[in-house]
Amino acid sequence: MDVRALVFDVFGTVVDWRGGVAREAARLLGPDVDAAAFADAWRARYVPSMQRVRSGERPWVVLDALHRESLPAALAEVGVDGVPDDVADELVLAWHRLDPWPDVVAGLTRLRRSYLLAPLSNGGVRLSVDLARRGGLPWDAVLGAEVAGHYKPDPEVYDSAPRLLDLPPSAVCMVAAHGDDLTAARARGLRTAYVHRPGEFGGLRTPPATDPDADLSVGSLEELATALGC
Amino acid sequence: MDVRALVFDVFGTVVDWRGGVAREAARLLGPDVDAAAFADAWRARYVPSMQRVRSGERPWVVLDALHRESLPAALAEVGVDGVPDDVADELVLAWHRLDPWPDVVAGLTRLRRSYLLAPLSNGGVRLSVDLARRGGLPWDAVLGAEVAGHYKPDPEVYDSAPRLLDLPPSAVCMVAAHGDDLTAARARGLRTAYVHRPGEFGGLRTPPATDPDADLSVGSLEELATALGC
Repeated sequence: MDVRALVFDVFGTVVDWRGGVAREAARLLGPDVDAAAFADAWRARYVPSMQRVRSGERPWVVLDALHRESLPAALAEVGVDGVPDDVADELVLAWHRLDPWPDVVAGLTRLRRSYLLAPLSNGGVRLSVDLARRGGLPWDAVLGAEVAGHYKPDPEVYDSAPRLLDLPPSAVCMVAAHGDDLTAARARGLRTAYVHRPGEFGGLRTPPATDPDADLSVGSLEELATALGC
Repeated sequence: MDVRALVFDVFGTVVDWRGGVAREAARLLGPDVDAAAFADAWRARYVPSMQRVRSGERPWVVLDALHRESLPAALAEVGVDGVPDDVADELVLAWHRLDPWPDVVAGLTRLRRSYLLAPLSNGGVRLSVDLARRGGLPWDAVLGAEVAGHYKPDPEVYDSAPRLLDLPPSAVCMVAAHGDDLTAARARGLRTAYVHRPGEFGGLRTPPATDPDADLSVGSLEELATALGC
């Protein structure tokens, strides 16, 4: 592959959203709430909440705002009848306090020797910055939905990466643990690498081990570094 | 100052554009060309070239494209009657190969302990990434004209920094060696820090030692780190 830059899905691919949101929920909501079920309930509202922006039904808002709006329904699903505003604010920040999977920093550090690296997340710029600071993620730039003004899988997000990195689409590889993200990236001419993250859904869903349509399928970012000769 | 993020002008403030462009010009154009005069002639076309975008006379183009367009006139001014396309491409990339002033990496490294750091340059994202890679600049994100879709001193560029960093304007401090940049930042509610860079114009112009309208005036980014208690 004549690839110069790798752009990464973040939630699930780089960081463990379920474990991190559940940890923060346990801290903020106490032991009587099923924190993992709450994380799942909140995440279930993620795609529908973005859909209203993607369809044009409402103007652009950053993911934090969507998380804030879907919070009451997610809380209700685990039997919590609302929280004070300051707790709601802290819960939204849970998505800024997610930890990388154990292979990520070592993998990115190796990959950075040969490639430009950037997140291409639906999370906002500040969220990506906060995750990078927390986890020590060595990004060269922060790309993604907020910079593009569109949520994935809108084509504008995938197009923004080669445009802002001044590369042909075929010199940019999208790295993700989700086949639909990679399918949308391929439709815009990007190369694709699938990362198997069996723990993303806590065993409730079983992601496939490989994506036969991707250029590469790997089990970790360290494996990706090895596959790319880094 | 209740500042959480520092955003930096780059050409002249962080990197020595004149020395870097002259070095690349000497390499690419040979010893018979006055390389420093060429750098000055090219830079003199920088503000007018952006003005046509800022006025709406032409649609957005990235700074590399403006540099490419103004190259023939800058070459003519030092007696060069045009260059092959590959040399022109390399000359445009000279702006991606500028070195930081000697205090920059040490200063940014100290500042990064307490602040989010990002360039807010008229250079494109890839240009900022290339300068960061070359110089080891520890940015948290790459902001600036291309992300905002406007050139400084358009207000949209200054507004983009607090918006993308999810901070109030008063929590963002613009750091620049040019008073007009700081004046425009203050008009959008940002705090400002002036850096005295007496070498920027090779002695042809003498920048003032301080900016009395700025919150701070310093002689280097290390001094800025000291002034901010980092």
